[in-house]
Amino acid sequence: MSEKQCIDFLLSRRSIRVFEDRDVPTDLLLKAIDVARYAPSARNSQPWRFYIVKRRDILDKLSAIHGGATPLRRAKAAIIVTSVPSESPASHQVDAALAAMYLWLALHCLGLGAVWIQTLRNVEEVRSIAGIPSSEVPIAILAVGWPAEKPSPKPRKPLESVVKIVE
Amino acid sequence: MSEKQCIDFLLSRRSIRVFEDRDVPTDLLLKAIDVARYAPSARNSQPWRFYIVKRRDILDKLSAIHGGATPLRRAKAAIIVTSVPSESPASHQVDAALAAMYLWLALHCLGLGAVWIQTLRNVEEVRSIAGIPSSEVPIAILAVGWPAEKPSPKPRKPLESVVKIVE
Repeated sequence: MSEKQCIDFLLSRRSIRVFEDRDVPTDLLLKAIDVARYAPSARNSQPWRFYIVKRRDILDKLSAIHGGATPLRRAKAAIIVTSVPSESPASHQVDAALAAMYLWLALHCLGLGAVWIQTLRNVEEVRSIAGIPSSEVPIAILAVGWPAEKPSPKPRKPLESVVKIVE
Repeated sequence: MSEKQCIDFLLSRRSIRVFEDRDVPTDLLLKAIDVARYAPSARNSQPWRFYIVKRRDILDKLSAIHGGATPLRRAKAAIIVTSVPSESPASHQVDAALAAMYLWLALHCLGLGAVWIQTLRNVEEVRSIAGIPSSEVPIAILAVGWPAEKPSPKPRKPLESVVKIVE
């Protein structure tokens, strides 16, 4: 794979909120999670878990946790990424976020679209809806499906406004 | 790019702690940061900044912040990724972590190696060494260089121990 292909892959990931009315095979979700396990973590603690949700009633309940969760209404599946504080007290949140990022990129490799649904202000509610134990913290829900939109990249801050050279 | 090439790219990223004694051009670091700007963030807030460090004395000071920071002694460069809480009070830490993950993958595209140095317990010290304002939180330092080792992947927890299907 060339440097350009590699960078184009990173640049071509989008937040996909509109999905085809077509099943997402569980095997494909497992394939993406299999890759997400290779995200980095502090002291290789891997303080993360992945909950696959395909039940319509549960997806609908999750879609109502806040205004940004509505893509779950049309998503054929979701993966809830949780962290396990006891496995890495200082880094669990960041580590699980990196696993969710890896998961999103792996889904993109497989042609699936996803959008990151925030959960940090709705921890108890998400636990209750999906049967997640109190020993875990829901870090993100990825709504997943076959993309039915091709959004342009959102505008980014200019490079020079976010970079500083320490001299 | 095939699905396999894409997944192999994600699986081939490693923590690189030993580097060649060869300069890392600032232009390449800027190229990687240019890609890292395309990481996702809540409401596209992009609450992140990137500090390029190539000065030997500053790299050496950063290498002493804790035991895990020693790869900075041999690194030819570092990029400190900070978050800006005022730009996204609820999500700045996760968003900046995702930008650091994107940055690491972009460096990997360019053939550069990196390792993630934790900073969350050494915020004041990193700010002071690198001249980072108190309005920003150092989320990670990536030590960067041309890889001089080819580590095998670290063992991962079995897939079945980290996945649950919600039924």
